[in-house]
Amino acid sequence: MARDARRSTLVDIAADAGVSVSAVSKVLNGRTDVAAGTRARIASLLRQHGYQVPSRLGFGVVDLLIADLHSPWAEELLRGTMEAANEVGTSVIATTVHSPQEFAGWLGRATARGTDGALCVLHLPGGRELHRLAAARIPLVAIDPPVEPGDAIRSVGTTNWLGGMTATRHLIELGHRRIAIIGGPPGLWSSRARLDGYRAALQAAGLGVDESLIRRDDFSLSGGRAQAGELLSLPQPPTAVVAGNDSQAFGVLQALGERGLRAPGDLSVVGFDDVPVASWATPALTTVRQPLAAMAATAFRMLRSDPATVAGEPHHIELATTLVIRESTGPPRR
Amino acid sequence: MARDARRSTLVDIAADAGVSVSAVSKVLNGRTDVAAGTRARIASLLRQHGYQVPSRLGFGVVDLLIADLHSPWAEELLRGTMEAANEVGTSVIATTVHSPQEFAGWLGRATARGTDGALCVLHLPGGRELHRLAAARIPLVAIDPPVEPGDAIRSVGTTNWLGGMTATRHLIELGHRRIAIIGGPPGLWSSRARLDGYRAALQAAGLGVDESLIRRDDFSLSGGRAQAGELLSLPQPPTAVVAGNDSQAFGVLQALGERGLRAPGDLSVVGFDDVPVASWATPALTTVRQPLAAMAATAFRMLRSDPATVAGEPHHIELATTLVIRESTGPPRR
Repeated sequence: MARDARRSTLVDIAADAGVSVSAVSKVLNGRTDVAAGTRARIASLLRQHGYQVPSRLGFGVVDLLIADLHSPWAEELLRGTMEAANEVGTSVIATTVHSPQEFAGWLGRATARGTDGALCVLHLPGGRELHRLAAARIPLVAIDPPVEPGDAIRSVGTTNWLGGMTATRHLIELGHRRIAIIGGPPGLWSSRARLDGYRAALQAAGLGVDESLIRRDDFSLSGGRAQAGELLSLPQPPTAVVAGNDSQAFGVLQALGERGLRAPGDLSVVGFDDVPVASWATPALTTVRQPLAAMAATAFRMLRSDPATVAGEPHHIELATTLVIRESTGPPRR
Repeated sequence: MARDARRSTLVDIAADAGVSVSAVSKVLNGRTDVAAGTRARIASLLRQHGYQVPSRLGFGVVDLLIADLHSPWAEELLRGTMEAANEVGTSVIATTVHSPQEFAGWLGRATARGTDGALCVLHLPGGRELHRLAAARIPLVAIDPPVEPGDAIRSVGTTNWLGGMTATRHLIELGHRRIAIIGGPPGLWSSRARLDGYRAALQAAGLGVDESLIRRDDFSLSGGRAQAGELLSLPQPPTAVVAGNDSQAFGVLQALGERGLRAPGDLSVVGFDDVPVASWATPALTTVRQPLAAMAATAFRMLRSDPATVAGEPHHIELATTLVIRESTGPPRR
């Protein structure tokens, strides 16, 4: 932008915000001596005109809000965010948020210190929280939202439906006909999509859907172990199972081990996620890879682009899953 | 402290630092309008007098420097630091540091924005880096230092020697006599201590040490798998193995699986660390628990206590390991 045009834009923004051009210039240069409310008003107008606005801290910071860090899946998202942020010299502040109270506490601190935006994992802010975020001018992007996020929230997910279909088709191509699925909690968007992908693959292959082979449980090792135990006790047990995620798949392998059975000879097992430890399983887990680090990096980039300046950018992006074939799947023995 | 005594201390500090009492008061109240060099001088004197000094950011922040986040072990330390910091409203900024250049880059940013201190994991700053940290008045605590840190660096570790002994004694008590160990890289302090604990347990039980059963490799799954393969090919293979860490133990389980063997019947396996996924193994892994979250929390607390005010506090603390007995160990079959 030519110098005069730039000057004229800043004059316009100052007039819009009801402040001096010098105040606008201070915000643009990351100076800290502008009152918080004024700064937020100016920063928002600057972003609408395509300017990058440094945070009030004098350095870039994004917040990662996560309901639970106790899983390799969550840790991969944290790692991906850190790597994307560190590349551009931005710091990541990660906070665990389990409740509306903790969200409010975080929001108070983040507003006081400033932030370039928030990435939400598992916790999807509700209407009141969205309103307060908007009032504080804190941009938000959800990663792998637990429910369909709607147009009001930008989000990055993965192709769960396609992933469920790919896993099931892989087993069909190996010759399996009795294929079970252990889904996650029915309320989760991702669970429903994966299950639908499973049904679609069976139907495309002209195979019927046996409802007794469809199970649901927590996305946990114990959930996978319990459901696998029941499946293996059926009069006609399945020869293959699509687990809801890798934790469940590890539980399926334990259920086999307890019975002196093993994958893939006695049961082929496919996981979902490809967390780093998926390759630690015995046998190493065939799984549907969610590109977790790339999802975090994409969300980080979305956060830094102002929605007002990128009209036409979709509010939800899904990155493709890929099937990673390792050792836990093979042709059926029976 | 009584009001007058407090006032008198602040006057002394102002005199020592060659600044006004008002400047001292500003630093104590987290005000940002004090020049960086002056602030550092004042903050250091305040800490020596037992004051908590808010960072220049107006909120507490500690830096976690970590060489490699690609392991459940590193992720547990990050999580532990976050939990301890979040409890007291402090934010954690995690940065991966692989080289002196990256360390210098981080130090420049941290000095510019301010930090309450740095926790180092795997990367132990050298003399030049220590000098620059001291000049920037950034306190440092190392977590699980890779080499003996010496008196110049405060550090938190775990009782590696005791852990190696406990694991080995558990196997002896189960009746094993041919017990192998896969150690980590010989340069690492923790590897040497664990190996010495193994030797001590054998000697205490009156068992000889068979050097052919002592292996070393990377702390990785492939390292564990390769060494287990060689051990299983010996004319007289061991009936039990102490792995250097949980990753190696998962590799041992894979080596067994590849040969149609299983733990604990064909080989008892003990890991080290108790990363959350240790319980995901088939069979669930018996392992020596490092209290990783508690180590991070302890390091965080050490960071916030000024070494000048806690004369007599040891510069290195080791938190106890505990043996977690699960399913991968049992009496020998042979």
